Amino acid sequence: MKIAICQSAGSPGRIGKNLQAMEKAAREAARRGARLVIFPELFLTGYDIGEKVLQLAEDREGPSAREAAAIARRTGTALLYGYPEKAAGRVYNAARLVDEGGGFAANYRKTHLYGAVEKRLFHPGDRLVMAEVAGVKTAILICYDVEFPEAVRCLARAGAQLVAVPTALMRPHCRIARTVVPARAHENQLYVAYANRCGRETVLEYCGLSCVADPRGEDLARAGTGPALLLADIERNVIEAARDENAMAADLRPTLYNAPPQEAGA
Amino acid sequence: MKIAICQSAGSPGRIGKNLQAMEKAAREAARRGARLVIFPELFLTGYDIGEKVLQLAEDREGPSAREAAAIARRTGTALLYGYPEKAAGRVYNAARLVDEGGGFAANYRKTHLYGAVEKRLFHPGDRLVMAEVAGVKTAILICYDVEFPEAVRCLARAGAQLVAVPTALMRPHCRIARTVVPARAHENQLYVAYANRCGRETVLEYCGLSCVADPRGEDLARAGTGPALLLADIERNVIEAARDENAMAADLRPTLYNAPPQEAGA
Repeated sequence: MKIAICQSAGSPGRIGKNLQAMEKAAREAARRGARLVIFPELFLTGYDIGEKVLQLAEDREGPSAREAAAIARRTGTALLYGYPEKAAGRVYNAARLVDEGGGFAANYRKTHLYGAVEKRLFHPGDRLVMAEVAGVKTAILICYDVEFPEAVRCLARAGAQLVAVPTALMRPHCRIARTVVPARAHENQLYVAYANRCGRETVLEYCGLSCVADPRGEDLARAGTGPALLLADIERNVIEAARDENAMAADLRPTLYNAPPQEAGA
Repeated sequence: MKIAICQSAGSPGRIGKNLQAMEKAAREAARRGARLVIFPELFLTGYDIGEKVLQLAEDREGPSAREAAAIARRTGTALLYGYPEKAAGRVYNAARLVDEGGGFAANYRKTHLYGAVEKRLFHPGDRLVMAEVAGVKTAILICYDVEFPEAVRCLARAGAQLVAVPTALMRPHCRIARTVVPARAHENQLYVAYANRCGRETVLEYCGLSCVADPRGEDLARAGTGPALLLADIERNVIEAARDENAMAADLRPTLYNAPPQEAGA
């Protein structure tokens, strides 16, 4: 399955403009053969827009979701995009997956909220989520989530082949895109697609550097710091080849990790 | 505490020459203020020397251990070096830590053996190990061990401030030195010192690229591909500052990782 990452600055606070940008990117990605397009964290509204993100929050099946479904139908691509989700009076930092026919496929609520601002604005999700996209078992995480190896391990154990990560990584943390993301792919022998924002938003300067890391932890595709549409092929036989070459899952020593280390005095 | 990494090709099969090289590196490191010098995996004997590694294996308190103790005493530095350990008829891929007075501080046996050759030659260790060096809680892992996030997490939970990793990373796996090692430092907010071999040994070409990654996951020191003596300061206040800035350990969601992800059809 070919996937695309849309690395974009978006239009903070302007849902209509961002839906237009979504359609444009999806059309170009579809033309180049992509079956799934991944957009950054809170792509629909902007990330650093303060309390406004709460006002712009929508129900999972709200008007923006209906428009995203229409875009998926018109372009024939599945879409994964970040948005603020309103549900039962709470707001979540969420990502929604629409299938290529416009049907609802999955909704994920960020489980590891980053820093004081996110913790004040959003309620944390309470479960990890996977769905099949064009035959590929696709898990969803958002930004800071992927920095916790336990989260990706849990998804890998459940059979994830691709972990798709809408993100909003800003300076000075750019190293995370180059180190942690490929490390997750390597240690789980699966694909990780990291779709970042770029440009500035208030005082934040986003890193760009979106990437697809392959099951050996190599960069399969890597964006620069500006807007980009990044394409990469997700191939089950590459996952299998990496695992045949060196079966890391079989080398895990679970009983070891639960025992306290031996502490010697020096 | 200042530490040093000795990145070296060593002299495969020649323990005496390697002990001489150890003394030379320890003397220079001590002159530059280091309290601990870390040598690569199986530094004493060479890594890729086939069955000969079994013949050269020694008891943990054997003649080479006594000579290493003398070097520590003469130079006033603690030493961590890889060697093949013989014990009760078994051979382990081990690393031994000698304190700066020449006393035995800790012995670690590689718990994750890499590939068919290591699994044939060595018996795996069955516990993780930490010791205090100049007031710094220092854990020991060997090469492939550090690729398992669970191992480093276990050590971090037990209070490790520095994870010292003798290694023998070869082409084409060099990306691991640049991605996985800094990722471990980042996700646990501690120091990781990765001491690699360099040069060629039979058909293997080692990557060099030894490094010390700091508690933000940044390269504090990074070697090239040739012989090097790398120095870096391990500072507890840097660990504390990183954790004050963003307390990752507090953001962990253990109950989440033990639950199966929600699987949606698409």
